[in-house]
Amino acid sequence: MLDTEHSAVIQNKIDQKTKPLGALGQLESLAFRLALIQSQDKQEAVSKIEINEPTMLVFAGDHGIADENVSIAPSAVTQQMVMNFLNGGAAINCFCRVNNIAFKVVDCGILFPIESDSNEFVRQRLGNRTENFAQQPAMTVATAESGIEMGRKIVRDTIAQGCNLLMFGEMGIGNTSSASAIFSALAGKSAQECVGLGTGINQEQLEHKVSLVAKGVARCQNEDPIKVLAQVGGYEIVQLVGGFLEAAKQNVPVLVDGFIVSVAAYVATKLVPECREWLIFAHQSEEQGHQILLSELEADPLLGLGLRLGEGTGAALALPLLQAAAEFYNNMASFESAGVTVE
Amino acid sequence: MLDTEHSAVIQNKIDQKTKPLGALGQLESLAFRLALIQSQDKQEAVSKIEINEPTMLVFAGDHGIADENVSIAPSAVTQQMVMNFLNGGAAINCFCRVNNIAFKVVDCGILFPIESDSNEFVRQRLGNRTENFAQQPAMTVATAESGIEMGRKIVRDTIAQGCNLLMFGEMGIGNTSSASAIFSALAGKSAQECVGLGTGINQEQLEHKVSLVAKGVARCQNEDPIKVLAQVGGYEIVQLVGGFLEAAKQNVPVLVDGFIVSVAAYVATKLVPECREWLIFAHQSEEQGHQILLSELEADPLLGLGLRLGEGTGAALALPLLQAAAEFYNNMASFESAGVTVE
Repeated sequence: MLDTEHSAVIQNKIDQKTKPLGALGQLESLAFRLALIQSQDKQEAVSKIEINEPTMLVFAGDHGIADENVSIAPSAVTQQMVMNFLNGGAAINCFCRVNNIAFKVVDCGILFPIESDSNEFVRQRLGNRTENFAQQPAMTVATAESGIEMGRKIVRDTIAQGCNLLMFGEMGIGNTSSASAIFSALAGKSAQECVGLGTGINQEQLEHKVSLVAKGVARCQNEDPIKVLAQVGGYEIVQLVGGFLEAAKQNVPVLVDGFIVSVAAYVATKLVPECREWLIFAHQSEEQGHQILLSELEADPLLGLGLRLGEGTGAALALPLLQAAAEFYNNMASFESAGVTVE
Repeated sequence: MLDTEHSAVIQNKIDQKTKPLGALGQLESLAFRLALIQSQDKQEAVSKIEINEPTMLVFAGDHGIADENVSIAPSAVTQQMVMNFLNGGAAINCFCRVNNIAFKVVDCGILFPIESDSNEFVRQRLGNRTENFAQQPAMTVATAESGIEMGRKIVRDTIAQGCNLLMFGEMGIGNTSSASAIFSALAGKSAQECVGLGTGINQEQLEHKVSLVAKGVARCQNEDPIKVLAQVGGYEIVQLVGGFLEAAKQNVPVLVDGFIVSVAAYVATKLVPECREWLIFAHQSEEQGHQILLSELEADPLLGLGLRLGEGTGAALALPLLQAAAEFYNNMASFESAGVTVE
């Protein structure tokens, strides 16, 4: 857990800023959280929140379940979108560009691998794609564990390069099915509650998706999180879980994107409950299960723009709010320094 | 009204981007609105949204009603905060800095005027402060009209300097009382509905505030908007109204901050209904009347961070979302250009 030794000093610094108490709403709790994280293991509370080399890692993987008509697009689109990412043409590229966010896409196991020497491309594949979890385990427990290690590694490497604020995104046709199944199994919610429209399927596809998710979940009764990941997970999701674990271990906050990334964050909290402290939820997406999940984690997301794209787009859009929180914490005048009358 | 000749072309451009239809939620309607505005009087729909010299104008004024204990602070704090703005120490300065927003504060009539040769300071005073509207008209009709002209002028000057996106904020101890009275009078809502806690008064003060607002509103029955402004308005509010009118006339969108600025926008729509088309609502504040007003104007605000500070802070925080909308409209790949499979 976060050491709260400096909490009072941090809160007092926020309260002395030239504004009514609490008038900056969620930005105040955000500044508090960032300052508390950066004060860990320090003698004094930090006087300045630093956001260095904010980096978006997009984890991509393919899913056997995609053959079951659970998405609006075929698995080939995962590869096409990864190419789009590397060409700078996707929504996530636009939002990273406009907000000065470093970007990397991680091939965790997409169906049609690509060759690229771009320094925005990381290849750490767990296979071509997972098995169809409606029929059999998506992967072995050993593969899930190996994926967690890979996710830890890319996060370790990114932090070693000077990043102290991470954003995670994902790409993978079929991955809302996998995320819904994981969440259903670990949260004890019905498949019906946890399955949504993804990027826009119809009612018939939705019912089919619910029944497939329920089949996978049926094999997960009372299993631990790693076994659930092996049964119904995805290559990008297991790497995301590892990424969350490592970020928390290294005291680096992660701005969490939409439903799939949030499910990976949820799994991380099931493995190591303290991880919750380093999670900042960027937005409330349109995906049905996301609201339930956010409420399970008592999360208060920063944005609610009706997004349902994934890729990390919501996290990238929320970054300026963190920078604004840091700036007011660092440089806003106090009543005393500004000579403003206090009641 | 906006000419919708290019609507279909703009919407088609958005729909061809590499994402499911509508998956960027409010960012899509934002891009549509900005592109439509910038396509006015053009032969073709714009292929590129441009956001040039985004500028925050903070209108400051003092209120006679402040003597009635309706705020947590005395009128002197308006001057102190204007000094804080000019020293770069307020929340609005922090958010303008971090989002690269040009900043000006306009003295519309604060109780204790200041001397400053800062190029961030504009002096166009309508008086020292308004009269106490619970007792008598806040200002004459001629003063209100003169204030509208001054608001038009600063906006005209700002646009002439190359700005094509405005943000408006305000500062003025007592101005939630004035804004509540204006809104109550023009929307036909009770004072009870329109009055909120401002920056944080207690229950007793709230009841007192409601009764004072009701007194002012009682003199406004069936009056036109200009007479309502004269009865219960504020110097900064009348200048804001003029600013909104001029921005619309010059086809420049305005990112609207919280309750007080929104009330000025509302007045502008009562004078010239088409103004509504150039208004982009930045956030839903904690002030009670704001939600009612947003719903009257069928506004879908971008942020909901629980802010209750004013100064333009919500508008400044929302700017990066407009820049993100412009960037995806301008530079995101289409299905065709990216070679992504369409169903």
